Amino acid sequence: MGKEITDRSEDYSQWYNDIVKKAGLASNSAVRGCMVIKPHGFALWENMRDQLDKMFKDTGHVNAYFPLLIPKSFLSKEAEHVEGFAKECAVVTHHRLMNDPDGNGVVVDPSAKLEEELIIRPTSETIIWNTYRDWISSYRDLPLLVNQWANVMRWEMRTRMFLRTAEFLWQEGHTAHATSEEAVAESRQMLDIYAQFAEEWMAMPVIKGVKTANERFAGAEDTYTIEAMMQDTKALQAGTSHFLGQNFAKAFDVTYLDANQKQQHVWATSWGVSTRLIGGLIMTHSDDDGLVLPPKLAPQQVVIVPIPKPGPEIDEVAEKLIAELKGKGIRVIYDQDTKKRPGFKFAEYEMRGIPVRIGIGKRDLEKGVVEVARRDTKEKESVALDGAVDFVENLLTEIQDNLFLKALKHREANSFEVDDMDTFKKVLEEKGGFIYAHWDGTSETELKIKELTKATIRCIPLDGKEEAGKCVFSGKPSKQRVIFAKAY
Amino acid sequence: MGKEITDRSEDYSQWYNDIVKKAGLASNSAVRGCMVIKPHGFALWENMRDQLDKMFKDTGHVNAYFPLLIPKSFLSKEAEHVEGFAKECAVVTHHRLMNDPDGNGVVVDPSAKLEEELIIRPTSETIIWNTYRDWISSYRDLPLLVNQWANVMRWEMRTRMFLRTAEFLWQEGHTAHATSEEAVAESRQMLDIYAQFAEEWMAMPVIKGVKTANERFAGAEDTYTIEAMMQDTKALQAGTSHFLGQNFAKAFDVTYLDANQKQQHVWATSWGVSTRLIGGLIMTHSDDDGLVLPPKLAPQQVVIVPIPKPGPEIDEVAEKLIAELKGKGIRVIYDQDTKKRPGFKFAEYEMRGIPVRIGIGKRDLEKGVVEVARRDTKEKESVALDGAVDFVENLLTEIQDNLFLKALKHREANSFEVDDMDTFKKVLEEKGGFIYAHWDGTSETELKIKELTKATIRCIPLDGKEEAGKCVFSGKPSKQRVIFAKAY
Repeated sequence: MGKEITDRSEDYSQWYNDIVKKAGLASNSAVRGCMVIKPHGFALWENMRDQLDKMFKDTGHVNAYFPLLIPKSFLSKEAEHVEGFAKECAVVTHHRLMNDPDGNGVVVDPSAKLEEELIIRPTSETIIWNTYRDWISSYRDLPLLVNQWANVMRWEMRTRMFLRTAEFLWQEGHTAHATSEEAVAESRQMLDIYAQFAEEWMAMPVIKGVKTANERFAGAEDTYTIEAMMQDTKALQAGTSHFLGQNFAKAFDVTYLDANQKQQHVWATSWGVSTRLIGGLIMTHSDDDGLVLPPKLAPQQVVIVPIPKPGPEIDEVAEKLIAELKGKGIRVIYDQDTKKRPGFKFAEYEMRGIPVRIGIGKRDLEKGVVEVARRDTKEKESVALDGAVDFVENLLTEIQDNLFLKALKHREANSFEVDDMDTFKKVLEEKGGFIYAHWDGTSETELKIKELTKATIRCIPLDGKEEAGKCVFSGKPSKQRVIFAKAY
Repeated sequence: MGKEITDRSEDYSQWYNDIVKKAGLASNSAVRGCMVIKPHGFALWENMRDQLDKMFKDTGHVNAYFPLLIPKSFLSKEAEHVEGFAKECAVVTHHRLMNDPDGNGVVVDPSAKLEEELIIRPTSETIIWNTYRDWISSYRDLPLLVNQWANVMRWEMRTRMFLRTAEFLWQEGHTAHATSEEAVAESRQMLDIYAQFAEEWMAMPVIKGVKTANERFAGAEDTYTIEAMMQDTKALQAGTSHFLGQNFAKAFDVTYLDANQKQQHVWATSWGVSTRLIGGLIMTHSDDDGLVLPPKLAPQQVVIVPIPKPGPEIDEVAEKLIAELKGKGIRVIYDQDTKKRPGFKFAEYEMRGIPVRIGIGKRDLEKGVVEVARRDTKEKESVALDGAVDFVENLLTEIQDNLFLKALKHREANSFEVDDMDTFKKVLEEKGGFIYAHWDGTSETELKIKELTKATIRCIPLDGKEEAGKCVFSGKPSKQRVIFAKAY
């Protein structure tokens, strides 16, 4: 069995593609920029979705479903929104095919042209706010706390599996509120939920911040973001939550009668995370042997491998272990294949990122022990069969914690405070990472720095300390450092 | 508070639309034929989906996700499939909009025409079998048991919410097998799962059968179906499972190396149920006061209403009840609104189909009782507070069983054995229902009967007894009765 994936040090980008492919997460499809999410990748997404969905419902949100297609004219109603989203999108112009008169398969029926073209949703603010007009009339209808799990499409020019695909899966929350304060609080609450999910479930540390005007969602008053650092020290925007002000309410004329019988425009938020998170998960934890998954999200948490192969004695021990592990809510599988050698199986499960492997061998059983291997550090140890279940339960927690701490240390080791442009360039070139620097607050400076270095302002950290300083580029006064980085 | 919905006896079709709207299940959207599934309707779908998903996984299936868009040329590869699906579908021809040179919003950018048009999936056999070519090479890769939860689109001319919409949500299973026998067994297994789900969860009795050649899925060798009878005695096709033979494997060149090192084409099945089931649920159980839901699928199973309004004493009793009900896994809500009168609330919860209502009044509490009302029969009784939780738990089971039995009796009362065309027409006209009649097995006869009566052959029942007879139309010999009915 040869080495199956490229080392990170050799070619990080190729390593990523190898992991996606060899771990069975996704594959390219016949449609440009669209991927097939394979069963192992989808099981991971299901676990992420189920946990997020629970967190949304625990905070009072309900799910609904809105149409895939959006009338073209809707996109033009919010001036900034159309600039951001209308440009690269899939346009439905006809509703029928017909047999080719020349006998070559099927062709578009020219008589079935739509009166108005329809766009496959790149995001659903427009169709949803057009609907909310009918749902909201009084302050009693507010707040309206709705989420949707859906596929969306953006005709990206350069795509990478999970990170940037033409079609992707996501959730988009769309809420309506009576006051600006409530809407801001909602967008902040959802940012907190995203951060909690990223850190506690994905074991991926994130920085909560607000985007600059340049990087804001098209149509938002404020865009909040969680930013994570990947192993190659580039930033990944992992989730965003937008305070939309009254922009969409005004564009779609959504008003409510307040307690004083006055008509008011409604205040809005929207927030979303997508299958992009899977890309972030891969680039936060995985190594040169394959995928590494945080136990809380791993589709299978434990695999039991009989050594050298299954048999009545080993099976009996395995089945008892499985029953006890399942009793503790641990997801476990037993590999009963008789044709593959243990070494081959070990490599395969390492590739797929199963956090814990239990090897059961006859000789070990005579000593009353099994071999427990953890995927993150690849350490192995002999564990008394009697205490194996408790050991594994604790180990899963330990792996989850270890992955988070390792990623946090990596981020800390690659975060730098920088005060002049020469150092800025030097640090960015030699080390990359997150550069904390003062900025004068203008788009002009931001764009010039981007032009010079390819680094963008990832966010203005929400918990950043106030500190008098001078803009790293213009020398103008600044009150807080912002984070610059190259980003996915 | 006036009567909100049309009586069934007055206008069944209008009654249906009223229920969908007033119970908060769905609403029309700005896009022709596409509906918005509202939170109450979506919560119902989530419960259906979760249970089906569990049944699929318990039988070894895994989920995956395939692209929304299908290259036009794929549809032509399976000759019958293209006839069935290529005609009315949404066609993506461009990938960009641009600002209208005349300043009127946005228009399609003519320079962004796709080389090959893409179709929004009406069903995914083609894109999936094109993918399976890469996934399958040896008998060890089989069986491949994959399911997808997705949105699909068919450009229907006449749409009705849930029953027939341009876009709908569904699951589509697509499996690959080494032998014909295994594929047939899979398609029958999934039919059994659909029937079990319909009867045990939806409380909707169904007849399992096989479709005639005329009514088969485009590209299938055999289509199995579950057929249910609605309250108006029309039939609803509630789910189908197809044995696809080697048609798609041949069209997309999917082969495997068998144990004897010979290349063989793969055998296939596909099977699906959709949000149409919600339409079936409504038309099986609901009444002139609103939605009636089987407890197993109801988003909320019990509502507690304080009479006349909340207060410390009632709240305390309610909270204790809620904790105990939740402890038994029962989904319960407590209405603490202080502005609406109990009578208004009762009507509202009846409209929304909550199976059990518990009224807690001060005077009742003095007697140590609460009032329990069931939605299906509208019976009310005083129940000792002490035993209320057990009473409600049993009542939910009783309601579930009662709904099924009532629907079964309705079907039995409207099923008729008919042996001549005059009686056939008379029964169909006067009573409707399921007509069990002999048929000579030809498409010609089937189509003539349809022309004469609008009734189609819903299925050849799988458990129908063999019985020598003569075709009700042609007089030719027949071995088994088939079911004719008018259908949704």
